[in-house]
Amino acid sequence: MSFRDHIVSCNNYDPGRVVPLFAGEDRVGLLRRDNAAALRRFPDVFAVADDRVSLVERGDVAAVSRAVDAVVDALVVEKRIPKSRNETFDVAPRWGAPVLFRLDRGAVPFFGTRAYGVHLNGYLWKAGTLHLWVGRRAPDKRVAPGKLDNLVAGGIGNGHGLEETLLKEGEEEASLAQSLTSHAVPAGAVSYRMENELGIRDDVLFVFDLEIPADFIPKNQDGEIVHFELMPASAVLDRVRTSEDFKFNVNLVILDFALRHGLLRPDHPEYLDVATGLHRPLD
Amino acid sequence: MSFRDHIVSCNNYDPGRVVPLFAGEDRVGLLRRDNAAALRRFPDVFAVADDRVSLVERGDVAAVSRAVDAVVDALVVEKRIPKSRNETFDVAPRWGAPVLFRLDRGAVPFFGTRAYGVHLNGYLWKAGTLHLWVGRRAPDKRVAPGKLDNLVAGGIGNGHGLEETLLKEGEEEASLAQSLTSHAVPAGAVSYRMENELGIRDDVLFVFDLEIPADFIPKNQDGEIVHFELMPASAVLDRVRTSEDFKFNVNLVILDFALRHGLLRPDHPEYLDVATGLHRPLD
Repeated sequence: MSFRDHIVSCNNYDPGRVVPLFAGEDRVGLLRRDNAAALRRFPDVFAVADDRVSLVERGDVAAVSRAVDAVVDALVVEKRIPKSRNETFDVAPRWGAPVLFRLDRGAVPFFGTRAYGVHLNGYLWKAGTLHLWVGRRAPDKRVAPGKLDNLVAGGIGNGHGLEETLLKEGEEEASLAQSLTSHAVPAGAVSYRMENELGIRDDVLFVFDLEIPADFIPKNQDGEIVHFELMPASAVLDRVRTSEDFKFNVNLVILDFALRHGLLRPDHPEYLDVATGLHRPLD
Repeated sequence: MSFRDHIVSCNNYDPGRVVPLFAGEDRVGLLRRDNAAALRRFPDVFAVADDRVSLVERGDVAAVSRAVDAVVDALVVEKRIPKSRNETFDVAPRWGAPVLFRLDRGAVPFFGTRAYGVHLNGYLWKAGTLHLWVGRRAPDKRVAPGKLDNLVAGGIGNGHGLEETLLKEGEEEASLAQSLTSHAVPAGAVSYRMENELGIRDDVLFVFDLEIPADFIPKNQDGEIVHFELMPASAVLDRVRTSEDFKFNVNLVILDFALRHGLLRPDHPEYLDVATGLHRPLD
């Protein structure tokens, strides 16, 4: 592995394998061709052409969401979409734009709608050395079981704002008091586009840095993390470079942290690959 | 103006107006079609085809540089290239790759070879508020006369390493002791591709942050900056948003600083435009 390999594998998206999903004039998703073909059975909701799929159903958010949900239920039966998680994500043409419909989280990669998450780097200085808190994901997680993770990370579900998600996940995942998490500094966003076995992940991760008090020990409350470890940041970066121990997208968040804090320096041969590879344009 | 406008104007590159310059198998430059046509007079050095220009001259760095220099001298006479600055930039296929030839700085946009610079954000906390040192460029600068600038900025000339350039420019531009500048933290790189009246700027700016002691007053030594001012960082960011007071590329460096330090927050409607727009991929 190299730093660049992690960036490449999170950006293995191939436009030739995909058709866009349109709602009116706006592209709102990216359907792998096999997934697009599976929507032909639902002409009341989706119009499937060779080069695009269009949302036919019109109406308010609730009406469109109900129609799409019925399609999702049928695709779950066909095992094209994993069983519903009972958590929905907003679908909109752009961050901050009016919501068009809500989609079960499990169906997001099938439709390739953009998903947003928050990732928190929990860091502290110890004996003059920068350290990062690292979590180990539970073995029963659907995505990346047993892999290493940031101190806190979570998707931004429908109805939960970004800061609210960060505060809530901080409590659930690491027992961080909201009064502490509220000091987290927003430090940018990592973006990538990746094909997986279900479809396309078109992801934006809002990145936060939080200095953790020396006497604080994170404790997981929701069963998603089995163990936390405080590691020297340079050792974390080495592990990113030499292994696939971290969840695929967490590698990118750590590379972004390393770049911003001078752990990775300009004389590193991959410096510009990292500096330019973490922020895929949002088209 | 908006934040996005600055990013767009630094990335006004239109591939349709340009042909690549190749050295062997490697693309090393981007020639606007009128500039490419002007090279037809020099078939011993450049082979000009409709869809590409190739460097014909072979030999070691000194030999190729001499041949290209002779062409540059002729183009200076024709006023296609401004008068030589007597400072040369290395030309290579990639950062860190072996140098193919050296090119007068004034000729870099004509050939569209990639140029590298260092920009230093000089910051401090004053009365609990983040401040930035801002310079005013001299009225006789060829590029962006009279515009506002970072505390220190400079191109990486031939034979000077990146850190060496930073230390040297810090002394010349702001009287920063090398012992202070050596604490600057590398924090990534900003990249953009821009057409100007001379040709194409294909630029990479290595970004550094340096905390400046409260009692330090920068003093210019090389005549490139006429005045320094310490401004609240939020006021600097406002000025970026509402004006063209800063040199075109300095707007991007300040946006990058604002993003990394939480001055620009995720609820800002342009947050993701900034997060994804500052790091043009290096192809």
